Amino acid sequence: MDELVVFTGNAHPELARNVVDYLGTPLGKAEVFQFANENIFVRIMENVRSRDVFVIQPFASPVNQNVMELLIMLDALKRASAGRITAVIPYYAYGRSDRKDQPRVPITARLVADLLTVAGANRVLTVDLHAAQIQGFFNIPVDELTGLYLLAEYFWKKSFIDNLVVVAADIGISKRARDVAARLKAPLAIMEKNRSANDDRSQILMVIGDVAGKVALVIDDEISTAGTLVNNVNALISRGAKEVYFGSTHAIFSGPAMERIASSPVKEVVVTDSLPVNGKKKSEKVTVLSLSTLLGEAIKRIHTGQSVGELFNGGK
Amino acid sequence: MDELVVFTGNAHPELARNVVDYLGTPLGKAEVFQFANENIFVRIMENVRSRDVFVIQPFASPVNQNVMELLIMLDALKRASAGRITAVIPYYAYGRSDRKDQPRVPITARLVADLLTVAGANRVLTVDLHAAQIQGFFNIPVDELTGLYLLAEYFWKKSFIDNLVVVAADIGISKRARDVAARLKAPLAIMEKNRSANDDRSQILMVIGDVAGKVALVIDDEISTAGTLVNNVNALISRGAKEVYFGSTHAIFSGPAMERIASSPVKEVVVTDSLPVNGKKKSEKVTVLSLSTLLGEAIKRIHTGQSVGELFNGGK
Amino acid sequence: MDELVVFTGNAHPELARNVVDYLGTPLGKAEVFQFANENIFVRIMENVRSRDVFVIQPFASPVNQNVMELLIMLDALKRASAGRITAVIPYYAYGRSDRKDQPRVPITARLVADLLTVAGANRVLTVDLHAAQIQGFFNIPVDELTGLYLLAEYFWKKSFIDNLVVVAADIGISKRARDVAARLKAPLAIMEKNRSANDDRSQILMVIGDVAGKVALVIDDEISTAGTLVNNVNALISRGAKEVYFGSTHAIFSGPAMERIASSPVKEVVVTDSLPVNGKKKSEKVTVLSLSTLLGEAIKRIHTGQSVGELFNGGK
Amino acid sequence: MDELVVFTGNAHPELARNVVDYLGTPLGKAEVFQFANENIFVRIMENVRSRDVFVIQPFASPVNQNVMELLIMLDALKRASAGRITAVIPYYAYGRSDRKDQPRVPITARLVADLLTVAGANRVLTVDLHAAQIQGFFNIPVDELTGLYLLAEYFWKKSFIDNLVVVAADIGISKRARDVAARLKAPLAIMEKNRSANDDRSQILMVIGDVAGKVALVIDDEISTAGTLVNNVNALISRGAKEVYFGSTHAIFSGPAMERIASSPVKEVVVTDSLPVNGKKKSEKVTVLSLSTLLGEAIKRIHTGQSVGELFNGGK
Amino acid sequence: MDELVVFTGNAHPELARNVVDYLGTPLGKAEVFQFANENIFVRIMENVRSRDVFVIQPFASPVNQNVMELLIMLDALKRASAGRITAVIPYYAYGRSDRKDQPRVPITARLVADLLTVAGANRVLTVDLHAAQIQGFFNIPVDELTGLYLLAEYFWKKSFIDNLVVVAADIGISKRARDVAARLKAPLAIMEKNRSANDDRSQILMVIGDVAGKVALVIDDEISTAGTLVNNVNALISRGAKEVYFGSTHAIFSGPAMERIASSPVKEVVVTDSLPVNGKKKSEKVTVLSLSTLLGEAIKRIHTGQSVGELFNGGK
Amino acid sequence: MDELVVFTGNAHPELARNVVDYLGTPLGKAEVFQFANENIFVRIMENVRSRDVFVIQPFASPVNQNVMELLIMLDALKRASAGRITAVIPYYAYGRSDRKDQPRVPITARLVADLLTVAGANRVLTVDLHAAQIQGFFNIPVDELTGLYLLAEYFWKKSFIDNLVVVAADIGISKRARDVAARLKAPLAIMEKNRSANDDRSQILMVIGDVAGKVALVIDDEISTAGTLVNNVNALISRGAKEVYFGSTHAIFSGPAMERIASSPVKEVVVTDSLPVNGKKKSEKVTVLSLSTLLGEAIKRIHTGQSVGELFNGGK
Repeated sequence: MDELVVFTGNAHPELARNVVDYLGTPLGKAEVFQFANENIFVRIMENVRSRDVFVIQPFASPVNQNVMELLIMLDALKRASAGRITAVIPYYAYGRSDRKDQPRVPITARLVADLLTVAGANRVLTVDLHAAQIQGFFNIPVDELTGLYLLAEYFWKKSFIDNLVVVAADIGISKRARDVAARLKAPLAIMEKNRSANDDRSQILMVIGDVAGKVALVIDDEISTAGTLVNNVNALISRGAKEVYFGSTHAIFSGPAMERIASSPVKEVVVTDSLPVNGKKKSEKVTVLSLSTLLGEAIKRIHTGQSVGELFNGGK
Repeated sequence: MDELVVFTGNAHPELARNVVDYLGTPLGKAEVFQFANENIFVRIMENVRSRDVFVIQPFASPVNQNVMELLIMLDALKRASAGRITAVIPYYAYGRSDRKDQPRVPITARLVADLLTVAGANRVLTVDLHAAQIQGFFNIPVDELTGLYLLAEYFWKKSFIDNLVVVAADIGISKRARDVAARLKAPLAIMEKNRSANDDRSQILMVIGDVAGKVALVIDDEISTAGTLVNNVNALISRGAKEVYFGSTHAIFSGPAMERIASSPVKEVVVTDSLPVNGKKKSEKVTVLSLSTLLGEAIKRIHTGQSVGELFNGGK
Repeated sequence: MDELVVFTGNAHPELARNVVDYLGTPLGKAEVFQFANENIFVRIMENVRSRDVFVIQPFASPVNQNVMELLIMLDALKRASAGRITAVIPYYAYGRSDRKDQPRVPITARLVADLLTVAGANRVLTVDLHAAQIQGFFNIPVDELTGLYLLAEYFWKKSFIDNLVVVAADIGISKRARDVAARLKAPLAIMEKNRSANDDRSQILMVIGDVAGKVALVIDDEISTAGTLVNNVNALISRGAKEVYFGSTHAIFSGPAMERIASSPVKEVVVTDSLPVNGKKKSEKVTVLSLSTLLGEAIKRIHTGQSVGELFNGGK
Repeated sequence: MDELVVFTGNAHPELARNVVDYLGTPLGKAEVFQFANENIFVRIMENVRSRDVFVIQPFASPVNQNVMELLIMLDALKRASAGRITAVIPYYAYGRSDRKDQPRVPITARLVADLLTVAGANRVLTVDLHAAQIQGFFNIPVDELTGLYLLAEYFWKKSFIDNLVVVAADIGISKRARDVAARLKAPLAIMEKNRSANDDRSQILMVIGDVAGKVALVIDDEISTAGTLVNNVNALISRGAKEVYFGSTHAIFSGPAMERIASSPVKEVVVTDSLPVNGKKKSEKVTVLSLSTLLGEAIKRIHTGQSVGELFNGGK
Repeated sequence: MDELVVFTGNAHPELARNVVDYLGTPLGKAEVFQFANENIFVRIMENVRSRDVFVIQPFASPVNQNVMELLIMLDALKRASAGRITAVIPYYAYGRSDRKDQPRVPITARLVADLLTVAGANRVLTVDLHAAQIQGFFNIPVDELTGLYLLAEYFWKKSFIDNLVVVAADIGISKRARDVAARLKAPLAIMEKNRSANDDRSQILMVIGDVAGKVALVIDDEISTAGTLVNNVNALISRGAKEVYFGSTHAIFSGPAMERIASSPVKEVVVTDSLPVNGKKKSEKVTVLSLSTLLGEAIKRIHTGQSVGELFNGGK
Repeated sequence: MDELVVFTGNAHPELARNVVDYLGTPLGKAEVFQFANENIFVRIMENVRSRDVFVIQPFASPVNQNVMELLIMLDALKRASAGRITAVIPYYAYGRSDRKDQPRVPITARLVADLLTVAGANRVLTVDLHAAQIQGFFNIPVDELTGLYLLAEYFWKKSFIDNLVVVAADIGISKRARDVAARLKAPLAIMEKNRSANDDRSQILMVIGDVAGKVALVIDDEISTAGTLVNNVNALISRGAKEVYFGSTHAIFSGPAMERIASSPVKEVVVTDSLPVNGKKKSEKVTVLSLSTLLGEAIKRIHTGQSVGELFNGGK
């Protein structure tokens, strides 16, 4: 395989720069912008024939535009005779649309997998999919990394580690929360909410497991408006939790998220930079851990044909 | 769409006969058998040109042979110019192989979806997939029915209904167990087991939620060797459950399953006939509810272009 | 083919309502909106099994979101077992990205064709593609209507018809301008501009043909910021044109378009409603002709298996 | 192309070990087994990223399980980012299902080709397909070796070589029998049987050509229950053949095969190890020639980009 | 399925006219011709939306042009929204290129199957493929008719029927010759030729079976230059055959065929009109049987969803 | 990528020889010929496993046979395990069939793109497509070179360069003519013809722009019968052009082309050798510039992974 080139779209150039710094290569040169008529234009400014190309583009806000931007970059690279193209998507949006739980709804997570494939992706590198089954929506190889072990490592050093309970934010995240709990040698509790309608309003029904007198670390896969976060934290405190921390790989932080975090009794919210958080007016409670080393190392291993699974001990 | 024909392979002809009885049509004529060299032979014995064809074939034991048998039937029907072919798979094996949870494992549930599609299936009708995301492994329409509401209905009439707790057999089934609990107006508890290795041995870690003094109805998607069942029942009793019932859509009942059920303190095991149970030497504790009306009605609606989702109120 | 259902996304519901008024059917019921995390959600609210479904969705602003919205609607309809799905795209964005005129650029018009196909479109109905070759980007049937004959008809009744020269706004539109000129029995002139860079700035080089003393009707396929329009009109007046009219099928009217039209010496700008113009603060000089009858008739003919080509005498 | 790795499924590990001995490489490490619920589990235990991978798996008994096992291994290897995957299938079952000779039967040999391709095979290496046309069922490159030249070589050293007649076991094998006859400079005769029904019973009609007083070497592509063999041998002896030998690439040896061979007047039955014969209680009359050198050399040539056709002089 | 329309290309319009006469429908209107630059132009002159379309085009001389012509007609029909398209190919050229019998040769019969499919054929109707396995080169339904039973019927009425031997022209046709022999209650002999090089020269090696004193009917699938025919006839006469007849479904009759037939001792050559024979200066020895009833009836049955296999008793 | 091999079909071996001379490699050995039954036979006579293969085959006369020949060569190379296959098509016929400009016509340029892809081409190298959008008919990488800059260079040295007007032969070629005009620093005029019917007769309507007193260089993409050329030249002279030259990349020169050129007042006709001109009885007015250096350099750059776009300064 010929030499490595890493490109970025407009979704998260800062992350891409950190990744290429780790790799010790310059960022690939490309123009990616919108015309006045909103049509996205892409021009790859350097030769990519037979190169091993990676495009870093999490599905950050504006989500649909960033999806289209990635698709168009893939098309340009394919037509420019790139040797192999890996779509690096640290945050894969539409993950929650992964099944038909009502009649006549789409499975958009599968649709996006097909769009990426038809546009020209030869492989995908991603982080903490909403459901592990989304890997099976692809027929091209997918390497899925996790940011949760970074979070576990961060909390491992806390003084309250011996009084910790790990809490799954809902049933869907409970398997991953269990893995975090195992790493932190802490027990597990599960929040059971009921998101009945399509209107984003969620309702805590109960906490399954014991949290009274403990420091609770709630684990979720993404934080959007922080509505779920606030409800979870309040429910845990009303159930007797001493302090509540919140850990999540993906930080969308849309709408009132920052205000809600600031005014909620949550002690600290720990996320990764799979999405661009730093540009936003950040609450002091928010800690951002960087995925750039993890992504850079995975890219290096994919490029050189080394195992990516070995990145985790017994991991993915 | 031309007239309806329903065929069966060798996996579960009894179920197929019950379905066509509901539909009021004769079973389609076909030869499906193995030659001495184990090659499966299929011959469709009646004209299927432009017909709306359904093939009923759960992935019962012998699993791999029944998968191949269905694929070969699909090929024969496609080449015989069938108008539309629906694979009716009341039990979809390989559902637990739905993600890469270790390096270099297959996603066989996706593979089987691709095999069915390439062999000629135009659509799929199935019951209680191991994970709802498996729908997204297909790009042809999938109608997924549930047998759990049959179970809920069955238990609704029990005298102990007001003292019931519904227990998810593990985290993976907890969303569906929650739906059953909601139907039965009962609280929910969750068993958390840790199936660490690839050797079928499971280990109960804990019960999340309260079961003491209650009648427990454990919900799982399938019963294989009944090892999980026995462990679940014992754990619940040791946590103070008064009585334990077990409900599962799919009854594989392999190896020591029947003996284990007979000798375990479980009160009753309620399953459906998605797989052929009646042929086996059945414990008296086992109750089998029939899916034939549900499947027959779904086939009728698919054939006539009526909504299948309406089969459930607010359902799938 | 079963009964007809017409759906609309959020791109141009007014046009969809006018089309179903022509057809005498109600608009299909569907929820199409964004969650707080910008993920588009679609739910088809009525049974579409085996129905002949049309989705009306021009690629209006916000362009990329409307493209994604259509793709997701197609996926939902496909998985809901729609009988046949026609994507009705009165304005097909990205038409100018139809060839590699520089190294390492995409051919986004082809990419979008593939996206539509993989998402589930069985056929496409569109109006005045930027280049007729875009039809060949599809392998599913495409019916392309033209709005230019509506424009020709409109101008045919003008008093200055005998002193008219039709002017192609640039070389790319010159074949279609010639057809309009033929319909209006007027001579043809061609503007030759040089759009050297990727920055939307265009530069008039010359007018090929005679315009002095004549009423000029400039024909273009779309008006975006109206920069080209202003330059064309000024160049024609400086070359002695008595009056200048401008006709274009598609009216994007982005950014300063309305102000530029208002302050330019152009007499009248005639467009169609392939894109939603009425919602914008419209200059009095702008006349909007409706495509709803044309689209409605084409849909009726596609549904009933009648020729669409006959809609035009000797036409497409 | 990166380094070579050879894996085996459970169909014929002895052959795989002999092949890697020839190649001087260790066998690739993998777990391939069935769970209690008969679901096949595969885990590749070493890194295969960008490697040139070969999987040796003849379709031995249990046939359908071994087909599925290979498909699942291919899926695991594809998702593990193998560089190129060659399915090495020394015996390709279902070869007799290569055409529709009755209405509404499948063409399973084509179906299996499609299954292999969709599962992830990039190329196929096989031995003596039932019909050479099966190569055309694939759109990936197929290298077909022959074991018949090994057999010819073996008989070339026999004392009766000058009094030999080569006999095609039926019309289907007559072209290959002719090639063997040419190698052995012997005349050709043809058995014409009539396999009228689908029940494996075959009936000798006649011997076309002269066999009286000669040593007959019957050539077939596979021996299943040895029913055909016994009938052929008896018919030749009743037509005056002095002695009868039987040569066949593939030895299925199902059911009563060994007893039939032992009690029949056939002098010797010569086969290859394309299928595992040694594990069976073998008649003393059966001689097994090994394909491991031929397969090993072909794999080496495929890996290094040398001609495989040159393996035969003027051969395939 | 909507109404039936039958089109013809330029390969064999006479046959198409006879078929539509049988069906009682007019021939579909279309322009199909070459421009001066040899580009084939096709225009379908009547509406085909949702129609059930058949295109009759045997691969007659000029072969490659007629293949391209059919492909282009299929593309035009697909883009014109035909409901279903059946390619009716009474003679499928390139049938002898059905396997790799030397290194690095194509399998053109498979390639042509893929070309037809990608161009838009939904199904194929053909007559006497060179090898039945060619059906498996398609993944769309193929109906293969035979002209050999017409020939058998023709010879059944001959006075010499009781002294007949049916002779396979070579090993490849021997299975079909056996079927003809069975129909005529005659014994079978087989010619074994050796076509060593790629130069069309064939060499008779021997006749397997008895022909002395008998009337021989040689069966082949096609007659090209009649070189094989002449050799066969001479060999049979030198082996004592009283008279020799020759029957073949397909009559290419290229180059010196007619002269060779005229000057050879063959009594009569019976062929079908799968290819246009009548336009050529025909030897008096040549009898042409028409396939138009058989093809017409098959088209009718495909259109109305009746069994095509029933056309033959126990037939295909 | 392994070593380079260049093959030629029968369309233009002279060009292929010149290209390999530039590259300093021998021409790949292959047999490509027709049997008496017009079936094309291909045999690649040297090992191509994992090689980087190029096949040079312009769509010269006989067009359809040369298309089929290329497709069959691609199939043979694919099945022979070539590493990468580039179809080098210096003249792509059927380019004018690039859109549906009437009801129910094909888009043959797209069809041919699909045929090439399904036959096995991994990439395409071509020269001056009729419309640049044809690149988008492919989903494999296409490198399009231009011969027009060779022509521009040739005319740049002429004495009349300062009195030149470049004339587009019709509207379709006007963008490319403008580029030539820019290179030659000359003004542009455009011929507007009206090719109403499908009968090759074209009719000059008018010349848009000034040509009086100037030396005119007409630019077209191909010369077929030279009818357009004669009309263009006459029209320009009648409009006062002093002298007329004609430049075109592709020289089909069918039928009366040479006579027409000889007897027309055109001064010189300059073409390239994308098609074989030298074999024809050439008018003295015809100058042929060779593409072999350009093609050879492009092949070298594709093989070694260098930019092809850099071949032109600011070019394609």
